Amino acid sequence: MTSPNRGFGSDNHSGVHPRILCALVKANADHAPAYGTDEYSRRAGRALKDTFGKNTDIFWVFNGTAANVLALDALTESHHAVLCADTSHLHLDECGAPERWTGCKVLAAPTRHGKLSTDALLPHLIRRGDQHYAQPRVLSIAQPTELGTVYTLDELRTLGEFARAHHLLFHIDGARLPNAAAFLQCDLGAITTAGQVDALSLGGSKNGFLAGEAVIFPNGDPSERFRFLRKQGLQLPSKTRFIAAQFEEYLRADLWRDIAVHSLEMAQLLARGLRKFPEIQISHPVESNAVFARIPKAWVKPARKKSFFYVWDPNPCEIRLMTTFDTTEEDINQLLRTFEGLQQTRPAPPLEPRP
Amino acid sequence: MTSPNRGFGSDNHSGVHPRILCALVKANADHAPAYGTDEYSRRAGRALKDTFGKNTDIFWVFNGTAANVLALDALTESHHAVLCADTSHLHLDECGAPERWTGCKVLAAPTRHGKLSTDALLPHLIRRGDQHYAQPRVLSIAQPTELGTVYTLDELRTLGEFARAHHLLFHIDGARLPNAAAFLQCDLGAITTAGQVDALSLGGSKNGFLAGEAVIFPNGDPSERFRFLRKQGLQLPSKTRFIAAQFEEYLRADLWRDIAVHSLEMAQLLARGLRKFPEIQISHPVESNAVFARIPKAWVKPARKKSFFYVWDPNPCEIRLMTTFDTTEEDINQLLRTFEGLQQTRPAPPLEPRP
Amino acid sequence: MTSPNRGFGSDNHSGVHPRILCALVKANADHAPAYGTDEYSRRAGRALKDTFGKNTDIFWVFNGTAANVLALDALTESHHAVLCADTSHLHLDECGAPERWTGCKVLAAPTRHGKLSTDALLPHLIRRGDQHYAQPRVLSIAQPTELGTVYTLDELRTLGEFARAHHLLFHIDGARLPNAAAFLQCDLGAITTAGQVDALSLGGSKNGFLAGEAVIFPNGDPSERFRFLRKQGLQLPSKTRFIAAQFEEYLRADLWRDIAVHSLEMAQLLARGLRKFPEIQISHPVESNAVFARIPKAWVKPARKKSFFYVWDPNPCEIRLMTTFDTTEEDINQLLRTFEGLQQTRPAPPLEPRP
Amino acid sequence: MTSPNRGFGSDNHSGVHPRILCALVKANADHAPAYGTDEYSRRAGRALKDTFGKNTDIFWVFNGTAANVLALDALTESHHAVLCADTSHLHLDECGAPERWTGCKVLAAPTRHGKLSTDALLPHLIRRGDQHYAQPRVLSIAQPTELGTVYTLDELRTLGEFARAHHLLFHIDGARLPNAAAFLQCDLGAITTAGQVDALSLGGSKNGFLAGEAVIFPNGDPSERFRFLRKQGLQLPSKTRFIAAQFEEYLRADLWRDIAVHSLEMAQLLARGLRKFPEIQISHPVESNAVFARIPKAWVKPARKKSFFYVWDPNPCEIRLMTTFDTTEEDINQLLRTFEGLQQTRPAPPLEPRP
Repeated sequence: MTSPNRGFGSDNHSGVHPRILCALVKANADHAPAYGTDEYSRRAGRALKDTFGKNTDIFWVFNGTAANVLALDALTESHHAVLCADTSHLHLDECGAPERWTGCKVLAAPTRHGKLSTDALLPHLIRRGDQHYAQPRVLSIAQPTELGTVYTLDELRTLGEFARAHHLLFHIDGARLPNAAAFLQCDLGAITTAGQVDALSLGGSKNGFLAGEAVIFPNGDPSERFRFLRKQGLQLPSKTRFIAAQFEEYLRADLWRDIAVHSLEMAQLLARGLRKFPEIQISHPVESNAVFARIPKAWVKPARKKSFFYVWDPNPCEIRLMTTFDTTEEDINQLLRTFEGLQQTRPAPPLEPRP
Repeated sequence: MTSPNRGFGSDNHSGVHPRILCALVKANADHAPAYGTDEYSRRAGRALKDTFGKNTDIFWVFNGTAANVLALDALTESHHAVLCADTSHLHLDECGAPERWTGCKVLAAPTRHGKLSTDALLPHLIRRGDQHYAQPRVLSIAQPTELGTVYTLDELRTLGEFARAHHLLFHIDGARLPNAAAFLQCDLGAITTAGQVDALSLGGSKNGFLAGEAVIFPNGDPSERFRFLRKQGLQLPSKTRFIAAQFEEYLRADLWRDIAVHSLEMAQLLARGLRKFPEIQISHPVESNAVFARIPKAWVKPARKKSFFYVWDPNPCEIRLMTTFDTTEEDINQLLRTFEGLQQTRPAPPLEPRP
Repeated sequence: MTSPNRGFGSDNHSGVHPRILCALVKANADHAPAYGTDEYSRRAGRALKDTFGKNTDIFWVFNGTAANVLALDALTESHHAVLCADTSHLHLDECGAPERWTGCKVLAAPTRHGKLSTDALLPHLIRRGDQHYAQPRVLSIAQPTELGTVYTLDELRTLGEFARAHHLLFHIDGARLPNAAAFLQCDLGAITTAGQVDALSLGGSKNGFLAGEAVIFPNGDPSERFRFLRKQGLQLPSKTRFIAAQFEEYLRADLWRDIAVHSLEMAQLLARGLRKFPEIQISHPVESNAVFARIPKAWVKPARKKSFFYVWDPNPCEIRLMTTFDTTEEDINQLLRTFEGLQQTRPAPPLEPRP
Repeated sequence: MTSPNRGFGSDNHSGVHPRILCALVKANADHAPAYGTDEYSRRAGRALKDTFGKNTDIFWVFNGTAANVLALDALTESHHAVLCADTSHLHLDECGAPERWTGCKVLAAPTRHGKLSTDALLPHLIRRGDQHYAQPRVLSIAQPTELGTVYTLDELRTLGEFARAHHLLFHIDGARLPNAAAFLQCDLGAITTAGQVDALSLGGSKNGFLAGEAVIFPNGDPSERFRFLRKQGLQLPSKTRFIAAQFEEYLRADLWRDIAVHSLEMAQLLARGLRKFPEIQISHPVESNAVFARIPKAWVKPARKKSFFYVWDPNPCEIRLMTTFDTTEEDINQLLRTFEGLQQTRPAPPLEPRP
C-alpha cells in the first residue's frame, strides 16, 4: 500500500538515498575527530576542490537556510544590501533570517519565471556612497530557481559580468544545484565558473541526504574568518564525518548526476502527462525537478488524498509538484489517473459553447 | 588494529550507537512530511512529554550551541543578562554566540568543581530596574557540569528556589543530562522538576546520536513564538523524522540509561585506575563521563599516540578523559598500561624522600 | 548678503527657532539631574500628555532615525515584518538601520503620492502563522509623507481600523507631524486618535530645534521596557533638560502651529509661483512644507548657485524644495526670479524646428 | 538660594559652559548644510587634526555610549572579544549595548584603582585561532578611569605596546579625556600618541557641552566605512554645525584645559578638606574630577539634602563626588561644613567601649 504521504510534496519528503545511507553506516566505524578534522571531511573536501577549483574553501553546515545566511554573512557588512528575486526563498521563506543575522537589507527584484535579468537589477544600483542608503553588495540567485527554471551558462556569464561591473559579489543558492547541472548537461563547477561565483550554498538535504549542506567559496573564504562566523552562527557540526561521508558518496561516480537526471526526467514525464489535460496549464518551463501547474480548484482536495502536493497559489489555483530521487513512473501515472478520474466527473467546462 | 583516534578525546569522537543507527535505517521508509509534522516527531514528542510533563513543548534542533542559544533567546529580551558558571561552555566555548544572537550580557560567576552556588550568584543580583545595567534574567547551569560533576537534586531545588525568588528563569544545558540522571539514579524529569526548570537543552550528539538535540520547555514555550525564533535562528530541520527517530529509540526501554550508566562506570573504573599512580591527581569528583587529572607533562605526548585525549590546562598539566557508550575496559587498561610504561621510564619522582 | 547655502535644501538646513534658542539659554541655569529626571522633562512630559492623552509614555531621543527604529523595536519581535511605503524614509534613507536593530523585515508597498492605501497593503498580509515567513506586525506611515502629502483624518481612521483588523500595530513617523496638523487644521493629538496610533516618532530637528525628538506611545509603552531598549539603543540622553526645554517651548502657546502654518504657507506660495511656468510641473499636492517639481534640467546648475535645493530624481529632472520656519517671501521671489531669468535666456525649446 | 540639585552628583548635572553656549548662539546664523558638510564641522575637524595628527578621521555623534559602542564596532568583527576593566562604564553601565550592537563578548579584567595592568590582561589572551572561543581583539580603557585615576604616559606606552604585541587594537573611552591631560600636564594628543591609540571616544557632554561627542581615529577610520556604521547605528546628527561649533570653541585657546584644570583643582581641594575628617577615607588617588570617599552611613541622608551626590557602594558606605566646570569653593565649603555639623552631633563611635 502506498503511504498517504507519498507524492510530490517536496524533495525533503523523501528519505535518504540508499547509497548515501550505506555511506553513513560505513562511516560509523570507531572514533573520528570532530569539527571537520576527520578523514571523511578531508576526502569530501578534496572531491569538492576537484569540482569547484583548487582554491575552493568548503564548510559543512546543517541546513539550507544556514548555508544561505552564513554565506551572505561572509560576503557582506551590515550596511550592505543583498539583491535577489522577489520569488526567492531568501526573500520569502527564511523568516527574515538574512536580515536578523547579517543586518543587511534584502532588496527583491521582479523576475520572469523566477529568473532575474540585469534589467530588473539595474534600478537598485543607485546612490553609491550615500550613507543614508544600504549599499548593494551581493547578487544572490537560486540555480535552479524556486520555480524550477534554470539559468543558462550564458545567462550566468552575463549576470557574473554584470555583478563584477557593479562591484557586487555573486552568490548562488544551490540547494538543488545538481538538478540545474543535469538540465544544462554540464558539471557542477561549470556553473560557478560561468558566473565567476564568490559563494555557493550546495545542498544535500533536498537531494537524498539525511541532512547536510556545504558553503563553498570557489575563490577561498572572502571573510578569512568564516569558521568563526559559522560557529557563532550556531552551525558548527561536531560529528562532521557524517556530513562529509554523504558528500563523498554523492560525488563518487557522479551519483549526484544520476539522482538529478532521474528527478528531471520524472518531472518532464509528469509535465508531458499534465499537458494532455485541457484543464491544466503548466506555469513555467520544466527545467529541473519542479512542475508548477494551474488545475481546477475542485481537483485539489480529492487528488491530495492520493498523492500529496502543495498549493502554491490559491487564486488562481496553482500547485507545485516536486519529483525526487525515488519518484517512480507509477507515482506519476497514479496522479495522472487521479486527474483523469476527476476530469470525468466534471464534463461541464468543455461543453460550454464559446462564440 | 585500534584506530589512532580511538581514546578519550570527546564523547563526540564516538559514532552512532548501533540501536540508534538501526532506528535511522528503519525511519528511512518512504516519504514523510517535513518540519516536525511527521509521525516520528509525534511519537518522540509523546515520549518526551511522558518524561518531562504533559505541558512540555519540544523543538528539534541540530546541535548543542543552537539548543543553548535559542533556549536563552526564548527566555530573554536583549537588555537582559544571563548568569552562568565561569567554567561553562556557554561562556567559554560558544564563540560569543549567546551575545550575538540574543544581545544579552553573559555574566560568569566562580564555581567549586564547576558547580554554582547561590553565594556566587548573589553579587550579580544588583541594580534591579536601573536602565544603565543589563538586567539579570536567566540562570543557566550545565548538568552534569563541564568538569564532570553533578548537582544533587537538593542543590537543584535550592537553585530553582533561588531563581524564583530573584525573578530569574532557569535553564539547564543538558548536553549530557542522562549522565547526571544515571549518577543521581533518578529519571530525567526528576532533574527538571527539582529545579522548576523553564528550559532545557537536551543533547543527543554526545550520547550516541548521529546529530540532533531538543529544546525542551517543561512549562510550555515561554516565548509563544519559539518556532519562529528557531527558523530565524537557522535551525529548523527539514527531515525531522531523522532527529525524532533517534530520540524515540533513545527513550525506548531506557536506552539512554544504559548508555549513561556504562559511560559513568567506565569513567569510575578509569578514575580508580588513575588513583593508583602517585604521579596523578584526580581534579574533580567523577560523577559523570569525564575524568580530569593532573599528570606529568612528559607523559602527554607519548600517551596521546596510543589513546587520544585533550590537555585541558597546560600548566599545571591537566588532561580531560571522556568516556562514551563504546568505551571498553580494554581502552582503559591500555591507557593505564601506557602510563605504567611511562612511569617505569622515569623512576625519579617517587624516589625523592619526603619528610 | 545671502549665504550661499540659504535656500530650499532641507528643513534641517535652517537653524534653531529664536524662541527655542531662548528656551535653551534659559534652561542653562544651575544644575539639573540627568536622564529625564529633571523639572524640564516633567513639564514637557505633562504638555505632551495633554496633547496625546493621559496614558501617553514619552521618551526623549536624539534624532529621527533613532525615534523610528526604537519605536519599531518596542512594537516588534525579530521575526516580524514592518509594512511601509516604498517611498518612505524608513525604507530608503535609514541605511538598513531598522533591519539591523530590530532584525525585522521591511516590506515596502507602492503608494499614490507617497500615501499608502489598504489595497496596497493587503497583498502582504499572507501566510499568518507560517514559520517560514516573517510575520507582518506593524504598519508604519509618515505623516506628512516624504513627498509632502498628508493623510486626511478619514484616511487615518481607515488605516487604523485596517491595522486593528489585521492585528497590526500602527506607527507614525512624525518627523514633521505639526506640518500635517497645520494642513488638516487639527491638533496633534487628533492625528494619533484618528489612527488609534500605537507609537509616534515626534520630530523636533526639522521643526526648528537644535536637536531632539520624542518617542510617544499614546497608550503607554507597549514593551514595558522601552527605557532599557533606548539605553541599549545608544540613545539615552544625559542632559535631558535641553531636549525637554525645546519641547516645552515648542508646545507653549502653539509655537508648533505658528511654525508649521508659516512653512505650509510658504510652500503654497512657492507652488503658486512655480505653476506659472509652463516648463514646470508640480509633482504632488502641496500639503506640507515640501514642493516637488519637474523643471528643465539645464536650470538646475545655475539656479542652485543662488538658492540651494536637491535634485530628487535626475531623470526626468525632479527637484525637491523644502520650506522652513525662516523661509521668507523674498527667498521665494528670488528663486522665481532666477527661474524667470533662465526662462528668458532660453525661449527656444517650444519653437525649435527639428530636421 | 542654592538649588536643591546643586552639588557633586555628576558632571552631567551641570549645564553648558558660557563660552560654549555663546558659540551655539553664534552658530545659529542662517542656513548650513547638514550631516557634517558645514563650515563649522570643517573648522572643528581641522582643530582636531591639529590635536591628534593629520591622518585623524573625526565623526560627530550624540552621546558617550554611542561613541564607545560605534568605535568598537569599527574595530571589531562579531566573533571578537573586547577586554576592559571590571570597573568600566563599558562593562557596567551600557546595559549590554556593546554586546547587542557589535555581537562581541566583553571580557572584564580586575584593576587597581580602576586601572588595568598587563598582568590582569594576560590571562585572557588564550586560545588564539580556536573557533570555539571569542577572539580578543580590542583593549578598551577609560582615561581617566571611572574611579578618577589617570594612566601615566608611561603606563599608556606599556599598554599600547602590549596591545600591538598581542594583535589587539587600542580604544580609549575619553568621556573626560581633558581631565586626564590636565593632570598629566600634557596635550590631548600626547595621550593617544603614547598609547598608539586606534580609536578614541572624545567626550563633550561631561565637559560643559549641551550634548555632543566625537569618535576619533588617529590613524584614520579602520573600518573604511564608519559613516555607514554611524548612520545604521542611529547616530548621524543632522544639524552638525551645533556639535562642531561646541568642539571648535572647546579647543579654541585651550578652553578645554581651563575647564579641566578647574575641575581637577576643585576635586583636590575637596579631597584635602575631606582628609581632615577621621571618619572619612579617600578610596582612590584624586587625579581628575572625581573623589571617592567612605563616610559614615548616617551622614548620607542629611548631607544629600544640602549637596547632592551618589552613593557608589552602600556597604561599606562609599560615595562619589564629582566636580565640574562650575564647581565653586563655596560648594566645597558647604559640603565640608555639613559634614562638620554631622560630625559634632555624633561623637560616639570612636569612644564606644566594646566587650
